[in-house]
Amino acid sequence: VAAGVGVADGGGVIITLLTDFGTVDGYVGAMKGVLASLTPAAVIHDVSHDLPAGGIREAARALHRYWLRYPPGTVHLVVVDPGVGTRRRPLALSARGRFLVAPDNGVATPLLAPGETTSVVEIQWPFPAGGQGGAPAPDPFPLSLSRTFHGRDLFAPAAAWLALGGAMAELGPQATDPPLVFREPSPRRGASGVLGEVVGMDRFGNLQTNLPGEWFPRGGTVELAGWQVYLVESYGFREPGELLAVVNSDGVVEVAVRDGSAAAFTGAGPGTSVFGTPSS
Amino acid sequence: VAAGVGVADGGGVIITLLTDFGTVDGYVGAMKGVLASLTPAAVIHDVSHDLPAGGIREAARALHRYWLRYPPGTVHLVVVDPGVGTRRRPLALSARGRFLVAPDNGVATPLLAPGETTSVVEIQWPFPAGGQGGAPAPDPFPLSLSRTFHGRDLFAPAAAWLALGGAMAELGPQATDPPLVFREPSPRRGASGVLGEVVGMDRFGNLQTNLPGEWFPRGGTVELAGWQVYLVESYGFREPGELLAVVNSDGVVEVAVRDGSAAAFTGAGPGTSVFGTPSS
Amino acid sequence: VAAGVGVADGGGVIITLLTDFGTVDGYVGAMKGVLASLTPAAVIHDVSHDLPAGGIREAARALHRYWLRYPPGTVHLVVVDPGVGTRRRPLALSARGRFLVAPDNGVATPLLAPGETTSVVEIQWPFPAGGQGGAPAPDPFPLSLSRTFHGRDLFAPAAAWLALGGAMAELGPQATDPPLVFREPSPRRGASGVLGEVVGMDRFGNLQTNLPGEWFPRGGTVELAGWQVYLVESYGFREPGELLAVVNSDGVVEVAVRDGSAAAFTGAGPGTSVFGTPSS
Repeated sequence: VAAGVGVADGGGVIITLLTDFGTVDGYVGAMKGVLASLTPAAVIHDVSHDLPAGGIREAARALHRYWLRYPPGTVHLVVVDPGVGTRRRPLALSARGRFLVAPDNGVATPLLAPGETTSVVEIQWPFPAGGQGGAPAPDPFPLSLSRTFHGRDLFAPAAAWLALGGAMAELGPQATDPPLVFREPSPRRGASGVLGEVVGMDRFGNLQTNLPGEWFPRGGTVELAGWQVYLVESYGFREPGELLAVVNSDGVVEVAVRDGSAAAFTGAGPGTSVFGTPSS
Repeated sequence: VAAGVGVADGGGVIITLLTDFGTVDGYVGAMKGVLASLTPAAVIHDVSHDLPAGGIREAARALHRYWLRYPPGTVHLVVVDPGVGTRRRPLALSARGRFLVAPDNGVATPLLAPGETTSVVEIQWPFPAGGQGGAPAPDPFPLSLSRTFHGRDLFAPAAAWLALGGAMAELGPQATDPPLVFREPSPRRGASGVLGEVVGMDRFGNLQTNLPGEWFPRGGTVELAGWQVYLVESYGFREPGELLAVVNSDGVVEVAVRDGSAAAFTGAGPGTSVFGTPSS
Repeated sequence: VAAGVGVADGGGVIITLLTDFGTVDGYVGAMKGVLASLTPAAVIHDVSHDLPAGGIREAARALHRYWLRYPPGTVHLVVVDPGVGTRRRPLALSARGRFLVAPDNGVATPLLAPGETTSVVEIQWPFPAGGQGGAPAPDPFPLSLSRTFHGRDLFAPAAAWLALGGAMAELGPQATDPPLVFREPSPRRGASGVLGEVVGMDRFGNLQTNLPGEWFPRGGTVELAGWQVYLVESYGFREPGELLAVVNSDGVVEVAVRDGSAAAFTGAGPGTSVFGTPSS
């Protein structure tokens, strides 16, 4: 395929960026420079560069919260890549009209949930389409692939290619083995109640459980770390400093302290068991 | 009013974003995705997501520094919202051609300073204009309002509505009660001098007082924490490591250490009294 | 020269931003507001605002990684400016089609490397072109220069001027004295081996040396802090937790621990000697 055939200028297409690079070393700047050189008309959105180093589960959890909020056509780029320089595969995925470019280490989990119809290709380098997706190399850099920074040299050019309207198939062949997926612990329903666990904790100290809010249609209570907590409509039903449970913005039960930290209050954290009793 | 009547595409309109969410949890990504879905042609500027959790005074202080630097038409979005899920009102304000969308908890103080002519509406949900400001819901999400994340579900759509050129009145009725405003301590002028206090401290350890620079037309001295400090023209009048006072970029007296931290040097901080003696 | 003659609207031109301001104080927001007011059609890219306070060497090192990755025409703005209010010169530089606006304190080093052809002007204030680069002052601010915040009042307007296509010469006269440049320690080659040192450390604890990768065409070993480490092709040649050396994405030898921190593992850091033995 001739370079650039059928490839638009990417005007207005969004490329989101999630990494564990921090910003001070200039690595993120280098990636954004490559994106800007290859897709001048695309729009770059920083999601975060402050993930813990190698925090692939944290990356998947964050991606889950935003990938579908962006409009179709958006290219999500996730470079949390402790396996750079090993045999881990670089992937490009497509689901519900959004794209993801990322290493095959579990961060793609949200696009591979049960029920999703997802295309997956293994990115080859150089791209079959020719060099960096058929686009001219960003002056004055020759096309090359470093051993330690595939974010700049492989993932960013692949994201640029998709933002320009290039085909997934031009990045490499369909993946034969399925991508790595994180399995979250499944909550269980019994006769006497439901059993789950804390699966996440945000910056405010809110404790996310894996108990679906819909299992508590008439409210109820949850117990964790020795505390029994009532599900309430919202934070306003408790006083500042009081413990509460609420169905959160992800649709699951969350334990929180109004104007405080439930993690500090209870000592609970990811892995802590949660026993729920829905009201009958 | 029919959805979309008189609403432009928001091309080039800037939406600024100030939160206490951090970035790693993906909440900011979710908000930016909603903004991008509803106002594809608007431009999003991150101001900060690293405010201390619940730091509403810090938010107001930061907003004070940037809201008027942006061009007219800009929509400032501030989501520091410890009261989400309580009765605190969601507000949209307009002053000097700029907009602010924020909870009613004091963060709007800069737009409500004496002398400002400010319109204020209480945002209703769903918007009277219809759903999310009359704009189509971002596929594939139905219109809904979570209990814990009004930044994504209410404030971002309201900001998008204004960026699209939608009318304030379509977001809700004029506010009847005045919004909450922080009162900064007022400095006083006496026969023997002027009395103020430290009201802020920045990342560099510079101590901002509430003493207006114009009260020192011929220079003078300030005393705080046992130190007497001369007002100088600029940092260059002192050696590295020396204490000095200067009229800062906000127009108030600031105590600083050249190439160092006045907070560490003096032990002073917000609330410390400052006694000034303008030169005669 | 009449204001605005030959000045385009800056559509699509990128202005990158690197500071040590942090974001929470709103100073970065103020700078971005000024840029948006003066160059509405330019695109602002945050590189980092989290440099250590006064971290001019860190700024130069980061800039080195990204300045050439951006397309020609890009304006790089670096405001790490502990000398604000002293006699340090504000500079605008041009090399390889990219611009840099920064204080004269060494951060411009990457654009002044041996072999670069670089133009340098000393920015005057107000600009000879008239006010803020001939552009209208951002309403409602008069043109003024604070003593403590040249990032907002001088560097951002100068960057905006260049983004609009304004001439360097309209910002001030050619620099007579050469700008300050950091001299990195030079590695040396001897009969028995090569001698260098650790010159940088990134967020992951990787140790960058100043030994060029091309000095090890057939591999070899490096010694530091009592450890002898083999150069390998990539991280994949070692197990998690093992020490290795690799030619990194900057083209120099880097000592790393797979899935870990070489800084923590070895105790080495910037300044630690590194003795290399290329394979023969």
